[in-house]
Amino acid sequence: MAKDNKKLVQAITSQEENFAQWYTDICVKAELVEYSSVKGFIILRPYGQAIWELIQKDMDARFKATGHENVAMPVLIPESLLQKEGELVNGFAPEVAWVTMGGSDKLEERLAVRPTSETMFCDHWSRVLHSYRELPMKYNQWCSVVRWEKTTRPFLRSREFWWQEGHTIHETAAEAEAETQQQLNCYADVCEQDLAIPVVKGRKTDKEKFAGAEATYTIEAMMKDGKALQSGTSHYFGDKFSKAYDVTFTGRDNQLHHPFQTSWGVSTRLVGAIIMTHGDDDGLILPPAVAPIQVVVVPIAAHKPGVSEKAAELAEKISKYARVKLDDSDNAPGWKFSQWEMKGVPLRLEIGPKDLEKNQCVLVRRDTREKVFVSLDELETAIPAQLEALRKDLYERALANREKRTWAATTMDEVRELAKAGTGYIKTMWCGDLACEMKMKEEVGLSSRCMPFEQEHLSDVCPCCGKPAKTMVYWGVAY
Amino acid sequence: MAKDNKKLVQAITSQEENFAQWYTDICVKAELVEYSSVKGFIILRPYGQAIWELIQKDMDARFKATGHENVAMPVLIPESLLQKEGELVNGFAPEVAWVTMGGSDKLEERLAVRPTSETMFCDHWSRVLHSYRELPMKYNQWCSVVRWEKTTRPFLRSREFWWQEGHTIHETAAEAEAETQQQLNCYADVCEQDLAIPVVKGRKTDKEKFAGAEATYTIEAMMKDGKALQSGTSHYFGDKFSKAYDVTFTGRDNQLHHPFQTSWGVSTRLVGAIIMTHGDDDGLILPPAVAPIQVVVVPIAAHKPGVSEKAAELAEKISKYARVKLDDSDNAPGWKFSQWEMKGVPLRLEIGPKDLEKNQCVLVRRDTREKVFVSLDELETAIPAQLEALRKDLYERALANREKRTWAATTMDEVRELAKAGTGYIKTMWCGDLACEMKMKEEVGLSSRCMPFEQEHLSDVCPCCGKPAKTMVYWGVAY
Repeated sequence: MAKDNKKLVQAITSQEENFAQWYTDICVKAELVEYSSVKGFIILRPYGQAIWELIQKDMDARFKATGHENVAMPVLIPESLLQKEGELVNGFAPEVAWVTMGGSDKLEERLAVRPTSETMFCDHWSRVLHSYRELPMKYNQWCSVVRWEKTTRPFLRSREFWWQEGHTIHETAAEAEAETQQQLNCYADVCEQDLAIPVVKGRKTDKEKFAGAEATYTIEAMMKDGKALQSGTSHYFGDKFSKAYDVTFTGRDNQLHHPFQTSWGVSTRLVGAIIMTHGDDDGLILPPAVAPIQVVVVPIAAHKPGVSEKAAELAEKISKYARVKLDDSDNAPGWKFSQWEMKGVPLRLEIGPKDLEKNQCVLVRRDTREKVFVSLDELETAIPAQLEALRKDLYERALANREKRTWAATTMDEVRELAKAGTGYIKTMWCGDLACEMKMKEEVGLSSRCMPFEQEHLSDVCPCCGKPAKTMVYWGVAY
Repeated sequence: MAKDNKKLVQAITSQEENFAQWYTDICVKAELVEYSSVKGFIILRPYGQAIWELIQKDMDARFKATGHENVAMPVLIPESLLQKEGELVNGFAPEVAWVTMGGSDKLEERLAVRPTSETMFCDHWSRVLHSYRELPMKYNQWCSVVRWEKTTRPFLRSREFWWQEGHTIHETAAEAEAETQQQLNCYADVCEQDLAIPVVKGRKTDKEKFAGAEATYTIEAMMKDGKALQSGTSHYFGDKFSKAYDVTFTGRDNQLHHPFQTSWGVSTRLVGAIIMTHGDDDGLILPPAVAPIQVVVVPIAAHKPGVSEKAAELAEKISKYARVKLDDSDNAPGWKFSQWEMKGVPLRLEIGPKDLEKNQCVLVRRDTREKVFVSLDELETAIPAQLEALRKDLYERALANREKRTWAATTMDEVRELAKAGTGYIKTMWCGDLACEMKMKEEVGLSSRCMPFEQEHLSDVCPCCGKPAKTMVYWGVAY
């Protein structure tokens, strides 16, 4: 009976059958999002929003601990302001939503619904910055941005997404560069430690970097299907924007200078990364740090004397050290199991009449389905230990998947064969020419993911053109 | 010398001279906001944003404690969706910003930048709600909204403001009504307990209620100048919107029903309320609960042996129980005093060489300037006690101002005289007719603030028309 119930709850496509459909099934069935009636716009439902809030809380604390302050910039940006930096506007113009009417009046100038806010921060700084004493200014904002994408998928690419955008200005280029690295490392730490997602840190090629940036650094995660997901980026702008927007300060030498600038962002895309890194055919699997419910307590034979009461008592105790939910609804236990598996709750606690007699309960891990009997007196150590073990295993499995799907190639024939054999990272040397990067895309369907900080020497030449190699690149198929 | 420095920092208009200018001076000089280059749009600077975040944190915890869940709805709303409920669209159409272009394409249908989200929530519920078992759905979102206001003032009325909008649906009208009251009480508690702002709770007249609502409840605060500020509202919609948007559920009787709906919101306007309730000619005065810095530590003669070290040590200790800032900059103490007074820091701790000898320090309250010498061994009790005393006094002073400026009238002559003599609340009986409400506005310049829950019987008739009175109304001049 539990089995039938299970099917009833789930009915999602398997990963094997259709990974893309499996993904969108989870987004909907785990009640993370709903498709709104505005084309390409999603609704974050309570469970999806709760996951995002846990990521936010974690990130926000880290940002503040390193001296960043939150601000709020206008949601609308005048076209003339957007146009001051040529590369940025060229990069974003095709995907901007334009406000042209205010009430019943046609606006004199179109206003863009913000696609990103470098321009607004620069405009603000051009008025408020005076002296080197006020530097650095390290700002962040949590907001949504709008980009008019043609094809959309929940969390991965939608016309609106929620994110943080950090924007900082510094007295020296070195300080700005250090900030860029610090924030990239912050992102990598959150991914690896809290989301249990291993990432490759590296620099984007010029073709793949942010419009207007001097350098873009990235963390790249690999999904279960071998595709790459750019999961966070950190940009160094030099003084390009501060010159374009006339941001100046009086330096220690009493002369006017332009500050050096960075920006960096992660978004609700991270929720997509969690789904596709850890999920299975029964649904989502959440790393404990961002699980709105870390432990679900399910009473078995709840009508038997003492069971409901004990389940409630345990939930109350557990709430002191973990996010816990008592499922005392009148659904069958099997139905509850499936429901909470779909929602990726890391740990299930079952307690029935026999357990009561033995002063024990059953803990079941979401990832392994491993069941352990635990004395009720030891729960307070057993639960955190199980959560930590799950986190560690999620990370190790994701890392193993990445290692299994990372291959090195020194010739184009090898590249072609590997790309045909499976999806993953292909490492090659590269001469640095755009032509070879384009050829890799056109002939093999691979884009450069990054030039990893951890370089290897695979050969002396670019496999594409045979010219001397400058760097090693990770290539892949990206979301 | 301290005096000169003081003037240098401040240079703000006095309340006496020009209250409106005093207000905007504080907004800018305390670095709460900056005027953006988008007309009518402000920037929340770090200090202003930090105050808003403390209000948010407080509110959000209260919402969650009563079973509300956060969600995120699209920022853009199709015109056709906005138009389904006639009163709402009529109320908001004149002040909507319209997106008409996506990239380089003209949109088939205009999209409104959300002015409020009742329509989106209803649209969502029309798809996801099925059974009474899923009710109530108690949602909230933190976001910004855009309303194309003609005249704007920071926090009080701007084209974009940040707020929370709660939206709930319930099985019965009684439950929805109870929710409306609960949330109004929640707002009143935050205002009175945390912001030290006394409020009058009541119901809006039909003229003043929210477009489309069956009933609007409000908390009204009185500013130092006697003007009223609507500080939070809670609306009961009955099943009007759920009928318009076809939101239905299968009830306990197995029949289709429309749920009963509420919405409620507070905004960054509360920051304006804090400024105008507590501030003085030296700047802002922040209630401790929402002060980003509760205690500023200022070393006196910091170059003398041991002073800097002791100041740092104290700040470190205080950080365990209060939000503290050590001002170890090389500005003169007088300059620091003025700066932190402008920013409304509730408590200043001074420590100099003589204090060191006596194992004491000086605590100075922002509101009274009262100085007390406190033994360093007693700081941990003295600081929280001083903060609480300040909070209580802020509240009492605001209450005294309101009581001083609240007058009863039974004839139109009395109303006219009182309105001429000063700004405040004028209480009168009212027949309930729109004509009398309009007359009060046109002839005396007063709008109805609310029909307070705490009613008094001042006379039997409406002073305006002489017909039998139905209720007592607070009239005033509103921001």
